[in-house]
Amino acid sequence: MCLECGCGGNHQHNHEKKKVDVLDKVLSANDKQAQSNLEHFDEHSVLAINLMSSPGAGKTTLLERTIETLCGSIKIGVIEGDLETDRDAQRIRAKGSPAYQITTGGACHLDAFMVHEGIHHLPLEELDVVFIENVGNLVCPASYDLGTHLNVVLLSATEGEDKPEKYPVMFRKANLVLITKSDLIPYTGFDVKYAVSSLRKVNPTAPVIILSAKTGEGFQDWLDYLTLQVRLKKKL
Amino acid sequence: MCLECGCGGNHQHNHEKKKVDVLDKVLSANDKQAQSNLEHFDEHSVLAINLMSSPGAGKTTLLERTIETLCGSIKIGVIEGDLETDRDAQRIRAKGSPAYQITTGGACHLDAFMVHEGIHHLPLEELDVVFIENVGNLVCPASYDLGTHLNVVLLSATEGEDKPEKYPVMFRKANLVLITKSDLIPYTGFDVKYAVSSLRKVNPTAPVIILSAKTGEGFQDWLDYLTLQVRLKKKL
Repeated sequence: MCLECGCGGNHQHNHEKKKVDVLDKVLSANDKQAQSNLEHFDEHSVLAINLMSSPGAGKTTLLERTIETLCGSIKIGVIEGDLETDRDAQRIRAKGSPAYQITTGGACHLDAFMVHEGIHHLPLEELDVVFIENVGNLVCPASYDLGTHLNVVLLSATEGEDKPEKYPVMFRKANLVLITKSDLIPYTGFDVKYAVSSLRKVNPTAPVIILSAKTGEGFQDWLDYLTLQVRLKKKL
Repeated sequence: MCLECGCGGNHQHNHEKKKVDVLDKVLSANDKQAQSNLEHFDEHSVLAINLMSSPGAGKTTLLERTIETLCGSIKIGVIEGDLETDRDAQRIRAKGSPAYQITTGGACHLDAFMVHEGIHHLPLEELDVVFIENVGNLVCPASYDLGTHLNVVLLSATEGEDKPEKYPVMFRKANLVLITKSDLIPYTGFDVKYAVSSLRKVNPTAPVIILSAKTGEGFQDWLDYLTLQVRLKKKL
């Protein structure tokens, strides 16, 4: 585990035991807060989704098109995580959904405490689902539970097909994998079969949706998945 | 872990280390076969579901009504596990779906090798989904991976609401929990809120559907869940 970047991630450095103990305490405190966040979402029957990917895989664009297409039939709130700038939150608000921007001030991931702060800036009682758009990063966010019901991981058709094997902790945690920007497959030559095979080595069972927010390919599957999860949550 | 009953379950006896080592080997061999089973399902784009519960929670009835209602729109095959008798397989065949009965000859759970045998007695190339109806038992089946994509656990409204906490390994493994026989709630006084709260202590995030195969309550949610999972599987 790595304390250099404070991520608790998978790159192994030669740290002393003391440092690891400190990180264990940090993660344990984070887990307690994550549990509290989850209970908070449950009390409001709100589905919470941790959205993770490399930078530029299309998380915000996915959310923009989701909000547009659902057109208020599902009430969406967003917690945005970025090192700097509030551009993503502005993009979400421009689509008519409430969004709270967290700037991590350099930290490479969100943690449960930041999300706790975000929760209290969203009108949970009016929402069906809260997306937490994590910092674009395939390593560090995987180690920090935020207190969500689902982890959705995006893999863009502009990235390498072997990403799941290279970032196994992230893809192992995924409840759903979205292969995004499918409209670019003819130009990038992205090999979907290879990518799914790479995913299966670290996560044998998570469903996969291949989609494009631009052309709408596969988008109905994503909306059906989301709508069903929200419906089941609301009924409890 | 218990070798008395061969289940690898959670009841702790005072076994010697040697016995535990033997069981580790059994589980490791089982896991390898499970992986092979999963690959076999994937090659045929067939969704595989491990259906588990106490005896009499309504697994076979759920399957009968599912087959009836879907009316061939999804092609279902079933591997039935029982200590003795092939009654469940007969009930499934009577609804028009292929079923293969495994009699475990006393063993309290299915394992991946038995399922492998079952796979080769089903026409996988014609199927969309294979249900594996495990032996009615909330302990031993939880320890044996069968090579399925989903674990669906049934909790009947005629059982105690605290079952999840009492059988944590089983409920922790569940991807979906079905509270069955909801039509009996007025007579049993089953406290759904308590049951969900008990579940959340061991499995904070799995979706829950409350349903009755008799009245049809909640059944559409179950069919939508199943249909979507099959659709995503078929598209890969």
